Parts: sequence; structure tokens; C-alpha cells
Amino acid sequence: MALRVNIAGLGTVGASLLQLLEGGQREGLAVSGISARSRSRDRGVDLSPYAWSDDPVSLAQADDAEVFVELIGGEDGVAKAAIETALRSGKHVVTANKALIAKHGLALAQLAEEMGVALRFEAAVAGGVPVVSGLRTGLSGSKILRLQGVLNGTCNFILAAMEGGASYADALAEAQRLGFAEADPSFDVGGIDAAQKLAILAAHAFGAMPPLTAIDPRGIDQVTPGDLSAARELGLRMKLVAAVSRTDDGLAARVAPALVPITSALDIGGGSENIVVVDAEPLGRVAFSGPGAGGGPTASAVLSDLTAISRGALGPAFGHPASSIDAAPKVAPDASPVPHFIRVLVEDRPGVLAGLTDILGRAEISIETIRQGPASQGEPGVELVLTTHASSTETHERAAAEIGKLEAVLAKPSVYPILSKD
Amino acid sequence: MALRVNIAGLGTVGASLLQLLEGGQREGLAVSGISARSRSRDRGVDLSPYAWSDDPVSLAQADDAEVFVELIGGEDGVAKAAIETALRSGKHVVTANKALIAKHGLALAQLAEEMGVALRFEAAVAGGVPVVSGLRTGLSGSKILRLQGVLNGTCNFILAAMEGGASYADALAEAQRLGFAEADPSFDVGGIDAAQKLAILAAHAFGAMPPLTAIDPRGIDQVTPGDLSAARELGLRMKLVAAVSRTDDGLAARVAPALVPITSALDIGGGSENIVVVDAEPLGRVAFSGPGAGGGPTASAVLSDLTAISRGALGPAFGHPASSIDAAPKVAPDASPVPHFIRVLVEDRPGVLAGLTDILGRAEISIETIRQGPASQGEPGVELVLTTHASSTETHERAAAEIGKLEAVLAKPSVYPILSKD
Repeated sequence: MALRVNIAGLGTVGASLLQLLEGGQREGLAVSGISARSRSRDRGVDLSPYAWSDDPVSLAQADDAEVFVELIGGEDGVAKAAIETALRSGKHVVTANKALIAKHGLALAQLAEEMGVALRFEAAVAGGVPVVSGLRTGLSGSKILRLQGVLNGTCNFILAAMEGGASYADALAEAQRLGFAEADPSFDVGGIDAAQKLAILAAHAFGAMPPLTAIDPRGIDQVTPGDLSAARELGLRMKLVAAVSRTDDGLAARVAPALVPITSALDIGGGSENIVVVDAEPLGRVAFSGPGAGGGPTASAVLSDLTAISRGALGPAFGHPASSIDAAPKVAPDASPVPHFIRVLVEDRPGVLAGLTDILGRAEISIETIRQGPASQGEPGVELVLTTHASSTETHERAAAEIGKLEAVLAKPSVYPILSKD
Repeated sequence: MALRVNIAGLGTVGASLLQLLEGGQREGLAVSGISARSRSRDRGVDLSPYAWSDDPVSLAQADDAEVFVELIGGEDGVAKAAIETALRSGKHVVTANKALIAKHGLALAQLAEEMGVALRFEAAVAGGVPVVSGLRTGLSGSKILRLQGVLNGTCNFILAAMEGGASYADALAEAQRLGFAEADPSFDVGGIDAAQKLAILAAHAFGAMPPLTAIDPRGIDQVTPGDLSAARELGLRMKLVAAVSRTDDGLAARVAPALVPITSALDIGGGSENIVVVDAEPLGRVAFSGPGAGGGPTASAVLSDLTAISRGALGPAFGHPASSIDAAPKVAPDASPVPHFIRVLVEDRPGVLAGLTDILGRAEISIETIRQGPASQGEPGVELVLTTHASSTETHERAAAEIGKLEAVLAKPSVYPILSKD
């Protein structure tokens, strides 16, 4: 007998999901009812076979389905109310709503376990990349040590456009024009989206879900085209990298722009591609990559959850019982020693370099390469570009702040970690 | 209550598995009995807590466990007898034995289904890379169109050594010395190992399992250092690529050396790293990469199967009921049009190029680039290196055979497909 499915929210993902299910690609599933804001909007799908509901919460408790799919969005409000209602009514729930899962996932997982139903959200992280199921199943035999990812397509797009010479403002405007960035872009460019995804992955990988306030994400809005072209000359490319690892004392997390060697695993394309790299013991390093956004990939991930439920995979939402997941782990900034890139705009006069290397020396940061060259268009002075040997980001940032106070320094120095292959 | 596990075969993988389980990394599992050829060999693990059996088949039907793990190896013989006995005794089976699964997997899956038990083999393909579970779960929402992989670490190693200047014979000898290749290397270098893995993946992806005889694998034993250095000048690197796709008339398969652009997804390292790239609709392209061999990664994959079983994931072995899997699909060589690399050693005299381009023209193969240069050390004549526009491998090979008959041609021409990013 087919598992009956109610779907709330018929934007790009919901419409793609209806197309996939109509396409008969998957047996064992049948859509019963649907709900969306507008009944009349043309979505390229015939809605007439399905019962229409104006109210997602009513649809969530309707008796004509065993599964409720939430594609409304928003971390609270009607999405949350509908999911809670569905779970309380004993229905399995599938959602693509990362903001909601990052904020309320543990409480909802607890509710799902109490009711003996499944809560699944493969689509909430990295779109079509099957990393959530990978952590739940294929990697369950290894102890995960670290997880790094490039998880935000908007940042990929903006950084690639800036590498092509655009200013941050122009790149952002272009991303907005093409629909890759929201009118309020802070969620993406500020690193909040990546931090939410990282929290969800950490709960699977470590049984500890860092609250967003503990991750302290940095965004890409301070990155300049001059930084990117200087990095490029060193064979490095900028990505917004999210990383979390287990420490003796909780978790270490980083959501910040970082430089990765061109041709390294993390140097993925400038589009919506996402990648997650997992280091585990005794497994070694495993990577998952693919389309992180878009209606088709996301709907495909939702469908994989529906298929899993139809096959009876009703295990706990985060792979571990919700009660066993630490909801408030200690989270420290990633203090692992890595090389860094420092770029400073300075007046072209004697003694500047001496002042700078003196500060680095006192911070016990040792320099690997140093280069002086012309500044980029529109920038004052000349640029000094340094790469350093491994030390913590905090140490580097403290030193950079001191460097910024030198009289000959014309702008706040740029400091980025360089994440090499190892 | 812990799931009790009997393990037959205590080589590298078995010993690593015992270490992992002793390490207490996984709850819910407890080893009962073990069996191996030698009881006294030092494996770095204390065997005293486990019941010893000299006979794997007895162990397979012993009542003190719910799961039997087969790590003996060999496509027939005692491994097969033990697995059949375990399944018939109503025990779940986990194995890392790709040769056995490629040959007898469908019949064993059928038996497992009849007995209502699980048969799982994540470790049989790509070692620690969770591609089997990825196909079973995370990608189950998409229609898979094509699957490509670099699946043999021995070939990776030999090709990398040859790119560094070694002859095929020296590279093979070094691989044997380091334990990366067997005394009889034909299984790896002849492409049989990769073909077995491909057949297992195809059964998951397409519900059709090509018999090995239908795949007709090519190995790397005809590759020369001259081919590799000429390819390298074009930004290309050689890999043994296994690929299978769905056609209107069955499957199209390729297991053969192919050239991939340096920095493309398939251009993975020269060690035991494996990668599987899946193209699916509407998902797009997803890649899984990681360690394809080694005791730790393989044991980790076995453990992920054990964990899945302990969580109740008892679905059909290949993701589809065994009776629904086509055991004898039509398999054609991959005829998709792709660019090719052709290298010909010729006498340096007028008219040679005209004869060669005439043959290509009649075959309707159009040339993209052509370069003449000195042959590599130890080779006669000069080399002509061509890249062509997309056409089938068969067309190219027929033309190359004709070229080989030209009087001025000094050796059998080399022809390899170039697999680009798309």
C-alpha cells in the first residue's frame, strides 16, 4: 500500500517534488493533499488530483496521509506550528527547512521519538548532496574527528564574481538580480546560513548541536577584490568555509572566509555546488559534493527521505536519540594552527616592513613568504602580502590588529586562514 | 540487547574490525566467535575473549550470534559456503567480498530475502567510501542516468609511478613490493576488479546487474610512459575509469584507461583514493570520494553495515528486491561520443600526416589539435599526438587500427577517450 503524503508549500521545491512524484519515478508514495499561499499561480503542475487546503496546520493533522512534508519555510510561525501538529497527530514529517531544524530540531526530534514517528531533513543541508544520510549510515562505523564544508551557494557566486574583478557591491547586486541572493542578503553573506547547516551536521557527527549564538560566524562582506587577486597569485581561492571538530573540551567551530589551494577538494565551483569533507578514524578522509540548491536537487533530497520512510527507516532524526544529544556544548573558535594569509596596505616608505615583522615576531608568528606590490585599483599605497607558518587564527588576528595601528598602515589588514589539503 | 556477531577471516580487515569493536566505538554490537586460518598469528588484538572455531562454516551456523561477518575472500569455496550456511540459518550477513558479490550476489540476495535477513556489503565497493549506502538512501529520490568511478587503487599507484617516469614493469614491481598489487596482478591491472565493483553499483543504480563477461574490461597494461607524458602536456592524466549508464536498450559500460583533465573530479590522487561520480535527474551531479582500500577504512565500512543492521535496516541487498533485478541485461560498450587522444609513433618523412588525416577524415573524425614531437626514451621515430572532437571509442579504434597499417607507422597507435567535466 502506498504511503500517503500531504505537502505544504508549493514554491520551487514543492512544485519540483510534485513533478517528481507525478512522474511516477517512485513507487510506494501517493500525494493526498496540498496547501500553499496561492491556489491559482501557475506552477507547471496539475494540482487538480490533490485535495486543496488553505491551512497548512489543518493539512498537517488531516487523516488522509501518513506523512507531512513541510516546504513553507521560516524558522517559526506556521511552519513550526504545522510540523508540531503533524508530529502530535502521529505523522512522519519531512522538511527542507534548515533554519527551523537548526533552531528547534532537537525539541522536534524529541517529540517525533515520543510519538514513534520519523522526522527527516536531508534537504536542509547541502541540497541534493546526500551528506545527512551519509553521516547516518555510511559513516556510522567511524569516529568522526572533523567536518569541513562549503555550504553556501550565494557566497560561492559572489566570491567568484569578485575574483573576476567585480566589487563586493556589484557582485551582490548581480546575485540578487539572478535570484541567488535575497533582498536582505545578511543571512547568506553573513555566514548564518552556513552556521545553521554546520549545527545540523555537528549534531549527527558528534551528538552535540552547537547553538547558533555559540558559533559566531563571520561573513564575506569584508573581503575585497584586492585580497582575492593577491591570493590568486599564490594559487589560493577564497571560500566561505564552515568547520567543526571535536576537542577535549567540547567543539571547535569556524564559519569564516578562508583560502584554499586551487585544485584542493574545497576549491569547488563558483555556483551552487556544495562540498562536505569528513575526517574520521579509522576511515580517513571522505568527501561528498554536488548541487547544494535548486528546486530539482532539493526535491530529490526530500524524495529520498520519503523513500526511506516508506522503507521503514524510522530511526532518530539526528542518528542519535534526541535525549542523548548535547544541546548546549561548549563551543570555542577553531584554534588549530594553520598557515595564514595577511594583506596590508601601507605607505611606500622605509621602516614599514620592520615594524610589521617586529609585531609578528613578538607574536611568534613565523613568515613563510612576503611580497610587496602595487595595490589594487582604488586602493591607497602599496600592498604587502605575507603567508605565515601555522599558528591559530586568534594569534594572527591579534597581531593584525596591532599592525593596523602602525602609522604607515592605510587600512585594516586582511587576515585569512589557509586551509591546505591536510 | 547487543547484536551478537561472529567473524570469519582475521586478515588486515578482520583485525581492524576487532580493534574497532573492542575500542567500544559502537554500542549495540558484541563479538561472540571468530575463525581464521591461524590461531597463533599475532594480529595486535587479544583474541581470548572470543570463542574460536577452526571451521568458518560451523561458525556461520552457530547459535550464539545473529550476524555473520565474512572476511575470508574468494569468489567461491569456503566463503560462499559459509555465507549460504549463515543465511540459511537465519543470520544476517555482512561481507567485504566484492568478487563473490559480483558473481553470486543476486542469488545470495534472493536467499537473504527468503529467509528475512539482511545481506550487506558496503566494504565491497570503494572501501570506506559510503557509495553503496549513498545509492541505497541519499540518492533514492533521483533517477540515475550515469555512474563513473575510479575504483582501483593498484592502477592509481602504477599510473602515478609511470607518470613519474617509471616503466610499466618497474611500476608494477614496486606496487608488488609495497603490497599494493598481488603476485598475479591481472585481476587489478586487467580491470576485472573495477568491473566487479561496477556491476555491484549498477545493480543498485539501475536494477540491472551486468555479468562480468558482458563488461569486457580493458586494463592498463598497454599504457606507455610516452602516452602519459604526451597526455600530461595536454593537461590530461590517465585513470582506469569504470562507467555505466542506462540506454534505451540496456546498459552501456566502459572499464578502460581514460584521460581526465587535471583538476577534474576524476583526477584523484595516485594512492588508494577512490571516487564515484553519479549523474541523476533531477539531482544533477554528485560525487563521493575517499579511501578505497586499507584495513581501517574497509573495517569502518563493515562496521557501518553492522550498525545499520543493529538499527533495523533490513531492506533488500541491492536496494531493490532481488527478483526485480535484471541478471542478464544487454550490455553494449559505451558508445557516447567523446573527444579522444591518439598517439602514433611514425617515421619522420613527408606524407605521413596526409595518410593519417585521410583515414580520420573518412571515419568522420574531426581533429581538434595535432602536435608532432620527439618520441619518448626508447621509442622509435617521432610522435604525432592528436586530440579529436567527440565521436565513439569504437569509431576511433577502428580508425586507429587502419592507421596502424600505414607503412610509416612504427607501433600500434594509442587511443584513449578524454572524459571531460561534463
